[in-house]
Amino acid sequence: MTDQVDPTGQCVFCGIVAGTIPYAKVAEDAMTFAFMDIDPGSDGHLVVIPKRHSADLFEISADYLAATTLTAQRIAKVALSELGADGVNLLNCSGPAAWQTVFHFHLHVIPRYHDRSKDRLELPFEPGMPADAEAIAEHARLLAAKL
Amino acid sequence: MTDQVDPTGQCVFCGIVAGTIPYAKVAEDAMTFAFMDIDPGSDGHLVVIPKRHSADLFEISADYLAATTLTAQRIAKVALSELGADGVNLLNCSGPAAWQTVFHFHLHVIPRYHDRSKDRLELPFEPGMPADAEAIAEHARLLAAKL
Repeated sequence: MTDQVDPTGQCVFCGIVAGTIPYAKVAEDAMTFAFMDIDPGSDGHLVVIPKRHSADLFEISADYLAATTLTAQRIAKVALSELGADGVNLLNCSGPAAWQTVFHFHLHVIPRYHDRSKDRLELPFEPGMPADAEAIAEHARLLAAKL
Repeated sequence: MTDQVDPTGQCVFCGIVAGTIPYAKVAEDAMTFAFMDIDPGSDGHLVVIPKRHSADLFEISADYLAATTLTAQRIAKVALSELGADGVNLLNCSGPAAWQTVFHFHLHVIPRYHDRSKDRLELPFEPGMPADAEAIAEHARLLAAKL
């Protein structure tokens, strides 16, 4: 694997791509690599990564981000047909405050099932809280001013 | 907005793009549109959509999926600088079993904060359950056979 730039030399996911750390591989192409999550939230929960090291969503290049997302889409479709999933969540966690624990960009592909014996995910927040329209408008204004 | 193909004519998100449904807009380009989530899980929680209607991850074309993801990345960076977020989650929900409620593909951009007064998300599942290595290997085999 020549397409890695791991500044620390200690990235676990770079080790998986290089084959020095054994994982259940799912797919590989020129830019991306997919393997099963060892702590699945549902049957078939896996992770897609760019082969080129980048820490997170803030650092990954546009071409690798697009390639990683398209690989995730391809696998999500196969999760429906081959695992009998009823839906799929894609999840990226960037930064410790967003639950990131391995600092090589990764996109979780989480097959979802009506059958709860295959799926232990719960909504990350309860919808339907009273919305603060003024706060929402202010956040929109702050973001839009720089976009 | 000519870039819409909403087979039902009743898609709420197509209505937002067309301007017939008022929402707090954040950004727009040729292929994508971003607006604030009306039921935010954190301060600045927003949604990025393709202007062209597609129901979910299984239906969206590669070019619109890539464009939507890159817009989300661009906004995520601004959430760090302008909202003071400490991280970001990207989340797509495809299918009712995966919490999808509006059937126009959308990518949630959820700024995350150490300050819990700005952020009410909880982990969707508790990590560290005993892993069933045989089941994981079997799921990998089923997926890899079609990839």
